[in-house]
Amino acid sequence: MTYNIDRLFSAVAAKGHVCAGLDTCAGYVPPEERQKAPNDAQAVLAFNKALIDSLLDASACFKVQIAYYEEMGIEGLQAYSETLKYIRKKGGLVIADIKRGDIADTAERYARAHFSGDFEADFVTLSPYMGMDSCEPWLTHAHNKGKGAFVLMRTSNKGMRDFQYQITNDNTFVNHENIEVNKNKRLYHVVGDRLAELARLNKGNCGYGVFGAVVGCTESDEAVEIRKNYPELFFLIPGYGAQGGGAKDAALLLREGNGGVVNASRSIITAWQKTKNNEKIDNVFAAEAARDAAIKMRDEIWSEVK
Amino acid sequence: MTYNIDRLFSAVAAKGHVCAGLDTCAGYVPPEERQKAPNDAQAVLAFNKALIDSLLDASACFKVQIAYYEEMGIEGLQAYSETLKYIRKKGGLVIADIKRGDIADTAERYARAHFSGDFEADFVTLSPYMGMDSCEPWLTHAHNKGKGAFVLMRTSNKGMRDFQYQITNDNTFVNHENIEVNKNKRLYHVVGDRLAELARLNKGNCGYGVFGAVVGCTESDEAVEIRKNYPELFFLIPGYGAQGGGAKDAALLLREGNGGVVNASRSIITAWQKTKNNEKIDNVFAAEAARDAAIKMRDEIWSEVK
Repeated sequence: MTYNIDRLFSAVAAKGHVCAGLDTCAGYVPPEERQKAPNDAQAVLAFNKALIDSLLDASACFKVQIAYYEEMGIEGLQAYSETLKYIRKKGGLVIADIKRGDIADTAERYARAHFSGDFEADFVTLSPYMGMDSCEPWLTHAHNKGKGAFVLMRTSNKGMRDFQYQITNDNTFVNHENIEVNKNKRLYHVVGDRLAELARLNKGNCGYGVFGAVVGCTESDEAVEIRKNYPELFFLIPGYGAQGGGAKDAALLLREGNGGVVNASRSIITAWQKTKNNEKIDNVFAAEAARDAAIKMRDEIWSEVK
Repeated sequence: MTYNIDRLFSAVAAKGHVCAGLDTCAGYVPPEERQKAPNDAQAVLAFNKALIDSLLDASACFKVQIAYYEEMGIEGLQAYSETLKYIRKKGGLVIADIKRGDIADTAERYARAHFSGDFEADFVTLSPYMGMDSCEPWLTHAHNKGKGAFVLMRTSNKGMRDFQYQITNDNTFVNHENIEVNKNKRLYHVVGDRLAELARLNKGNCGYGVFGAVVGCTESDEAVEIRKNYPELFFLIPGYGAQGGGAKDAALLLREGNGGVVNASRSIITAWQKTKNNEKIDNVFAAEAARDAAIKMRDEIWSEVK
């Protein structure tokens, strides 16, 4: 069985580490194109299609943040559905950034919702607060259809210190390569250890678990430890650019030149706003600017990896 | 300003503690009605409308689990939207069980998605893993439009022990009425304390915070402590019935006869499956059975409270 994690591993090797975030709101669409469209959701969809065409060979995968589409209601979710279909039809890989997490029965329904039908994606993001029984039902689909997931472990926002950083009374780093004594796990280690356990039991051919983790590149002092202790986890890495992480920080979370994708959204899809072109800016022009930004980011990360 | 938490407080006083869960899949619709409908989503919507009419005065509020609708794709979300609109048009209160939780910018978009437009609800449920900055952006809408939220604190599923039960190195129960020394907080206490802080600063006229917490009624030995230590939090209480909690357990999480709503879904909306009627079962019949089940549950809880 070829899992999507294997396809993602190959895509990183071939095209670099950029995960292009289609967190697209109507305000990011070139104004002339927005005016032409029948509604904002259609404007977003047309812009997304241009972006996808232009970014397919410059990024390893796409990530679509569903909140931007839910905000536009039913029309927005139609655009979301069409965006996912377009990426998959073109042979690209798409991570649905939905951060769902609910009890087992409900998780089954969410899994069917996002791994088949109108909202079918290749990967999803999940939130672990309710426990592993909110993540495990998604695994069936990993085995049946090759799907994958990235579970929130240590995110890149300020608030991650509130709960993910809590120090627990657990000091059993049993599965880690380097046992550090006199150290207690933070909550994100507890989550990470459970994910690593799951990954060891459910691996793709590439050696990474079919479920990976979301680890931000904003706290680089911890990145080396995290990468070393979780060799079986493929990382979805937010926090690049606007949130403060650079190519050097992101590279610390990669492993042997692979093992992670680095997400950037606004810096790519609104790159056209920083161009000096005073003529009419259309979707094709904006998508070219996005491509340039993605290639620049890809090369910056490559130069740190090599 | 009248907040929805005030409306919910009054509804509990007038109609009891039942939160009727419209976690409706097509399999729960009486078969003859399902066959008549143009598609499953429309079958669910028609059934929901009958349930709402019949449960409006027997339940304090409704909770709609969005996963059941996402599973049916775009058509499902149209039925979700219509269900919410129908409840609100009839003067009922609806909790959108969406368990969203994302970084600040994205949380703003989710808040607009679920507190206005096609998916407007009176309350939402939120997941706190990413930190308080994933919850706080929703507060603006609480103050502008009276909206409310319930944040996951200690849930009712087995997996809640994985992370919510982690014992932290924090023993500062500073805001609690009864400081217990030599005791360290579990993660759910850390979350609860942050929610209590928020609630004290953002209260409705009823004295409860505009944001409450999700606390399951499955671990009754902790219920007394939780209720005592978080007097400012209104609780959304899952775990009743199928998950093992009874009226006695749920009542431990109530306060002065109010302070919480107890969710039940399947036991109410599929009550018709247990009736002995051999004739044709339609939506009206099924909705009457749901009403009987809700009233029975309401009275069982009342008898424990009084």
